[in-house]
Amino acid sequence: MELFGTAGVRGPARTDVTPSLALRLGRAAAVDGAEFVIGRDGRETGAALAAAIESGLQSGGADAIRVGRVSTPALAYASRGRRGIMVTASHNPPADNGLKFFVDGTEYDRRAERDLESRVRSDSPPVPWNEWGDRAELATIEAYRDAVSAYVADEAGTCEGVRVAVDCGNGTSGLTTPQVLRGLDARVATLNANVDGHFPGRESKPTAESLADLRAFVDDGPFDLGIGHDGDGDRIVVVDADGEVVHEDTVLAVIAERYTETSDASDPVVVTTPNASGRIDERVEAAGGRVERVRLGGLHEGIAAANAEGTDDTAVAFAAEPWKHTHTRFGPWIDATVSAALLTAMIADRGLPALLEPITERPYRKTNVECPDEHKPAVMSRLESLLPDAFPEADAETEHGVRLTFPDGSWVLVRPSGTEPYVRIYAESNRVDDLTRAATETVEDALSDVSEGRGRA
Amino acid sequence: MELFGTAGVRGPARTDVTPSLALRLGRAAAVDGAEFVIGRDGRETGAALAAAIESGLQSGGADAIRVGRVSTPALAYASRGRRGIMVTASHNPPADNGLKFFVDGTEYDRRAERDLESRVRSDSPPVPWNEWGDRAELATIEAYRDAVSAYVADEAGTCEGVRVAVDCGNGTSGLTTPQVLRGLDARVATLNANVDGHFPGRESKPTAESLADLRAFVDDGPFDLGIGHDGDGDRIVVVDADGEVVHEDTVLAVIAERYTETSDASDPVVVTTPNASGRIDERVEAAGGRVERVRLGGLHEGIAAANAEGTDDTAVAFAAEPWKHTHTRFGPWIDATVSAALLTAMIADRGLPALLEPITERPYRKTNVECPDEHKPAVMSRLESLLPDAFPEADAETEHGVRLTFPDGSWVLVRPSGTEPYVRIYAESNRVDDLTRAATETVEDALSDVSEGRGRA
Amino acid sequence: MELFGTAGVRGPARTDVTPSLALRLGRAAAVDGAEFVIGRDGRETGAALAAAIESGLQSGGADAIRVGRVSTPALAYASRGRRGIMVTASHNPPADNGLKFFVDGTEYDRRAERDLESRVRSDSPPVPWNEWGDRAELATIEAYRDAVSAYVADEAGTCEGVRVAVDCGNGTSGLTTPQVLRGLDARVATLNANVDGHFPGRESKPTAESLADLRAFVDDGPFDLGIGHDGDGDRIVVVDADGEVVHEDTVLAVIAERYTETSDASDPVVVTTPNASGRIDERVEAAGGRVERVRLGGLHEGIAAANAEGTDDTAVAFAAEPWKHTHTRFGPWIDATVSAALLTAMIADRGLPALLEPITERPYRKTNVECPDEHKPAVMSRLESLLPDAFPEADAETEHGVRLTFPDGSWVLVRPSGTEPYVRIYAESNRVDDLTRAATETVEDALSDVSEGRGRA
Amino acid sequence: MELFGTAGVRGPARTDVTPSLALRLGRAAAVDGAEFVIGRDGRETGAALAAAIESGLQSGGADAIRVGRVSTPALAYASRGRRGIMVTASHNPPADNGLKFFVDGTEYDRRAERDLESRVRSDSPPVPWNEWGDRAELATIEAYRDAVSAYVADEAGTCEGVRVAVDCGNGTSGLTTPQVLRGLDARVATLNANVDGHFPGRESKPTAESLADLRAFVDDGPFDLGIGHDGDGDRIVVVDADGEVVHEDTVLAVIAERYTETSDASDPVVVTTPNASGRIDERVEAAGGRVERVRLGGLHEGIAAANAEGTDDTAVAFAAEPWKHTHTRFGPWIDATVSAALLTAMIADRGLPALLEPITERPYRKTNVECPDEHKPAVMSRLESLLPDAFPEADAETEHGVRLTFPDGSWVLVRPSGTEPYVRIYAESNRVDDLTRAATETVEDALSDVSEGRGRA
Repeated sequence: MELFGTAGVRGPARTDVTPSLALRLGRAAAVDGAEFVIGRDGRETGAALAAAIESGLQSGGADAIRVGRVSTPALAYASRGRRGIMVTASHNPPADNGLKFFVDGTEYDRRAERDLESRVRSDSPPVPWNEWGDRAELATIEAYRDAVSAYVADEAGTCEGVRVAVDCGNGTSGLTTPQVLRGLDARVATLNANVDGHFPGRESKPTAESLADLRAFVDDGPFDLGIGHDGDGDRIVVVDADGEVVHEDTVLAVIAERYTETSDASDPVVVTTPNASGRIDERVEAAGGRVERVRLGGLHEGIAAANAEGTDDTAVAFAAEPWKHTHTRFGPWIDATVSAALLTAMIADRGLPALLEPITERPYRKTNVECPDEHKPAVMSRLESLLPDAFPEADAETEHGVRLTFPDGSWVLVRPSGTEPYVRIYAESNRVDDLTRAATETVEDALSDVSEGRGRA
Repeated sequence: MELFGTAGVRGPARTDVTPSLALRLGRAAAVDGAEFVIGRDGRETGAALAAAIESGLQSGGADAIRVGRVSTPALAYASRGRRGIMVTASHNPPADNGLKFFVDGTEYDRRAERDLESRVRSDSPPVPWNEWGDRAELATIEAYRDAVSAYVADEAGTCEGVRVAVDCGNGTSGLTTPQVLRGLDARVATLNANVDGHFPGRESKPTAESLADLRAFVDDGPFDLGIGHDGDGDRIVVVDADGEVVHEDTVLAVIAERYTETSDASDPVVVTTPNASGRIDERVEAAGGRVERVRLGGLHEGIAAANAEGTDDTAVAFAAEPWKHTHTRFGPWIDATVSAALLTAMIADRGLPALLEPITERPYRKTNVECPDEHKPAVMSRLESLLPDAFPEADAETEHGVRLTFPDGSWVLVRPSGTEPYVRIYAESNRVDDLTRAATETVEDALSDVSEGRGRA
Repeated sequence: MELFGTAGVRGPARTDVTPSLALRLGRAAAVDGAEFVIGRDGRETGAALAAAIESGLQSGGADAIRVGRVSTPALAYASRGRRGIMVTASHNPPADNGLKFFVDGTEYDRRAERDLESRVRSDSPPVPWNEWGDRAELATIEAYRDAVSAYVADEAGTCEGVRVAVDCGNGTSGLTTPQVLRGLDARVATLNANVDGHFPGRESKPTAESLADLRAFVDDGPFDLGIGHDGDGDRIVVVDADGEVVHEDTVLAVIAERYTETSDASDPVVVTTPNASGRIDERVEAAGGRVERVRLGGLHEGIAAANAEGTDDTAVAFAAEPWKHTHTRFGPWIDATVSAALLTAMIADRGLPALLEPITERPYRKTNVECPDEHKPAVMSRLESLLPDAFPEADAETEHGVRLTFPDGSWVLVRPSGTEPYVRIYAESNRVDDLTRAATETVEDALSDVSEGRGRA
Repeated sequence: MELFGTAGVRGPARTDVTPSLALRLGRAAAVDGAEFVIGRDGRETGAALAAAIESGLQSGGADAIRVGRVSTPALAYASRGRRGIMVTASHNPPADNGLKFFVDGTEYDRRAERDLESRVRSDSPPVPWNEWGDRAELATIEAYRDAVSAYVADEAGTCEGVRVAVDCGNGTSGLTTPQVLRGLDARVATLNANVDGHFPGRESKPTAESLADLRAFVDDGPFDLGIGHDGDGDRIVVVDADGEVVHEDTVLAVIAERYTETSDASDPVVVTTPNASGRIDERVEAAGGRVERVRLGGLHEGIAAANAEGTDDTAVAFAAEPWKHTHTRFGPWIDATVSAALLTAMIADRGLPALLEPITERPYRKTNVECPDEHKPAVMSRLESLLPDAFPEADAETEHGVRLTFPDGSWVLVRPSGTEPYVRIYAESNRVDDLTRAATETVEDALSDVSEGRGRA
């Protein structure tokens, strides 16, 4: 049984993420801590799964505190000083559900997930009757909203004068983002801000297509920007006043630059993933910081590593993968409501166009080359020398695949897929076609070498 | 002290509708019944006023059941079999608040309001300590939604296939209308469905101007209709697929016709106010019923009177003034969520254009003639003979002012204003200018007669 | 798997009545109805089991309404018009727990239990995601107390002037009996009225021994009576002013006489079990009614049968087994709080000694004769003729074993044990030794006949 | 208007401590802080008063958190880090109610009360609508019980093996003391542990007379001690195994000695009032500490003063007046549940007789000498020299009246009454009659001097 995927436990509630599984996971999790908050997004199956978790936690000896419908960031906030479980399938269809585990604001890492999984497999019985945990109910959303408002007001001032349209997609961000923005004096109109587990307003995943209504609404109306969230409020998409989606890497670069500028550290670090755009590096470096790249899904480990290796001077100022931002000064979780409020406050100060103006957006392409799983290690090993040879003008890094950075900011990343029989090539450049073609040929050369046994020798 | 205006107690919460007043009103109301539900809309001052009412009711000997944030129709529904108090200032600005009193689903009539007022004036002390009432909390909104869904499904089927955009204006209809429509299988997108007492999305009163966002949204998008509500969810405005507001009398006529058609009574009656359009009469009469007109604000008395006078055959099928509909089969309160769902279900069946097609919309005008208050009785008395003389082709009624109905459906209504030194003239006709001019001259003649002492003789 | 014993599902919460089982039972029960109330006594494991049931019900498609800590009678009351599940192991030790199922106030009968059991075995999956049930919380105890108070006041007036000590044994009757008695104007002191699942004050089962504290308290103090309850408030023991336990059959007889006297029926029936004392028959017959006996645990079926067979005249006035009373006028469940209040009101009127005075208490004995299970049918068949022959002066009934009633009210009951290899002999008589000896010899004769193959022939 | 007496605001709820007053007090208190917890004891009028306070706080701009029925110590605990208001009339009759105000665990001092009073008089209007406070509900009792259990277990270990009977007098200590004792492994039986605002079990004030039931119960039963509380759980009376009340000063001395022994300070101080027994000094001094006396009702000021004047070495180890104990290590409020648990744990260790054995209980007498209010200052001034002259063998202190301490531990205190025309004489000594007579004569001499104008010269 492999319960945890890249985003916690997730699947159809009727067959996979059932109350029985939730009960066993709750029981197994109780070993981890004395007190858990349990939240859920708006899905129809959420309350029953939360009740099963509650029962599992209690019979495993932990106290269970039900916090009701919340966004994932709000649950993470409430998990500070204890543990938390969020019942959500993020932007999956309404028939799905899932569980995310938090300790003191941080999502469980792979090791904690594997420990939990092995305890679920052993399926231990309840603790003795006089050690079962208590239950309580707690309203936490107001405290979260107040904390976000205070944080953003302190970081970037109010949102006064900005007209913003927020499409919550019937997710639980409808309980946080519009209220925080309004409290910071933005003028807020909302789309689909009623929490509804059927997701009647639009597909839960915010994309250029699913946000068509928002984009038209912003384009037609007197709005300075539009904001779209996913079902549990940890993902943000930004739309400009013309209804065009702002590229996720551009949003990331704008916030990364800001945090680098305002960092107290002499050597501020922004942590991101290898496939994120070079425009992030440009803005961070322009602001006097540097970018560290970690494997996909490994942001939290990256933060821990960067903080651990460094002196006080190398505090992580910001950590993000596209659409998902961890505001390290506020807390160690992904928080799209903070992103929404911070961006809007920055726009109140300078306007969105001024924020976007310095960002260089180069053409981007992603390509696959077929490569059997068994050849991947040798191919990648071979490419560590072939690629630098093929692009002598570029700086090469080999920590997460091979990444080549060119003097003009262009870049190429070659890495093996973790799930499919491919080597993937990412490139961002004004001559993206040329770079992609050259890189592809090099990968094919490496693959020939390996399959014909020439290896590295 | 004149507490109750045309819409219950209403005014600024800081100076007029204060917690002290709410406490005294609660104490005074406790004499009326043993158990009250207390609801509130989303205003910032609502919770404190509700707490004061609770304290007043309890110390007056009644039980207080807090139902939290609800729409006014949902509170009225919850008041069946007991009494209820709704804390709302409807579509007033956010600094205002107010109170509406219900008994068994029906809003207090003038007499009950006056009784309450006189008890507030006498300001009686608490009852003996061992007779103070209890308190409880109750979630009622789900039961209300289920009841509306079941009622509309039974009356008109589902809303399957209809695409509808609902602008709740940050009012408490955001807790009911989108959910009911979705439950009836409509495809629902929402604007401003997050309940927020600051009314950030738009002015709380739904008008063609305040609904500009909704109208653009519907016009641009793939919607069959748009629906706008006020702050507490008892008022409805309908927008067609082109973003145009459908005239409130036309909406009323469409629903009135429907209820007349489906009535079991041999002589179904629709109750409305004198200034409502003749198109209502046309549709009701076409469906085999008749219209009774009552004074403005007097709908409930009108229903009671019509039901009392009649045999079983004259049951009131529907009662409404513009924007405010009482679905008598469902209950004796104004309910815009039922209107929204019923109309959408009718559209699912036939389409909005087909519903509107038979309605004749004639030009409408409203004019004032200055007239001192002291002359009003004599002037109106004089007009009861002058106006029928001036328009011999029309049928004349004199119950609520003088109303003239012409063979082609045109009509003129002349009545004294209750609050200002005017006689008002309403006319709806394809020759509205001619009729208004002629009626104005007749009114001026009557005024001359009276002021020169010619009187009626 | 045999889940249901004579008192619902019951056993150690850690190994038998686990959250997993509760989840499956909830899922299986959801087929029975659309809405369930879930209550629990004060046991430490109760909340977790209730949460599991809630999850099971919801994922099975039913709505779950949590009512928190209540007595079993209060849960039964709340189950009217819907269904209910009570989490309780009654007077078992604190490590145990259990479940009782109700429909419209009546505990599930054997058939309903077997249906449920077979659905648990088949362990059906959750219903589709959009059919999962809702959850709610509801405070019901106040309404129950009010209903009991109103019922008893109407039946027997207030308890004014009576001084009563109630030992709730830390069970959930601490939430009902003292409050109801005080509300009826009794002067109430309590022992162990704090609900505590550790049962610190005394063993949960109320017996002469476990009530030693109460008995001394009543004997020493200015009390007219003492009342003891079990852990979930469906069992009552009465103590007189001298601290002596009043025999459970005597209590039953006093109440049975009262209900017979006040019955509107021309032929009022009291339903009880075969082992209940003949003093019941005496008092019921003196009051103009008659007693029907049904198998142990079969009271509800007995009520149904008696009501079904009869005309309007044969309404069941009361139904009880020792310690457990069903006040049929109030509702079809066992209710010790009603018993407590009714008795106290009767004492307020006449005093306890006057109530007990007419009751004849004869010596009682219970004996076992060993008998292999396989011989039981033949032995009982044989006894149907041997016993009447041996006691020609007695009337014999053979419906539930063989019961012999003598002209002076003495009686002997012979029946096979349902769980052990015995034939049981019960006798109540001033010559109880003689009757028991003679009956024992007859049973042994029958057993000899059968084991030697003489059978009935 | 003099709202605050010696114990906060207190009086009949119908005429004095009305919802109107509570609303005004809440409004006035809101100026003091941003967030208040509101608790109440079990009185029938408590919920309505709490609702009025809530409304007042919110409309004054503060957040109101309702914590429901709690003991006063539990409310004080919940007020840490914010403010709190307790609705209770302590041991007054059920028709009364009252309010106590807390800041960060400490009851308001006279100055804070006077400030509040003057704001109530000025009766300020609500704050602007968008500054009204929020409301929330919070369950706090469990956290309080856990904190007390952990504190006592750490201070004195468990209560294992001790058999204790607790009479909660239907007060809110029924929610805390039995549970804490049971959690610490005592064997607990309870009297009147059901919270009931009618106080049906006994008079709310615990005295030798009102605890007659408890005393008989403990005497008859297998108990090591009995504990009695008042209506809101801040007062404790201890009963020994024979049912005799242990003198309140003896209880105080036992706990004072303990805290002195276990203090980390080199100069531990116990703060008490002038009328408290010399046996306290004996035990505290035997343990290496010293006693500071402050005016009646001035404990908190005394703690503050002692802590302020001193170095780290003079931390206050304990502060108490008879029946009311402030466990300064746990928190700055009076807490009878901590006293109950601590004493029981000490008994588990050593037995009650061993704790009482070292205490010298001397006869005690209190006498009044008539003295007009206008003469009091001169008389007391005169006594500052006359009394030391009359008792040269005693040490004299003149801070709170004149207190004479004799070498054998006897003492005499002479002080003017604050409310009546008396000078009061307290004496505790084996020759109490002699000392009282001699002191009385000296007081009469002083009075003669003053009334005859001899003054001090």
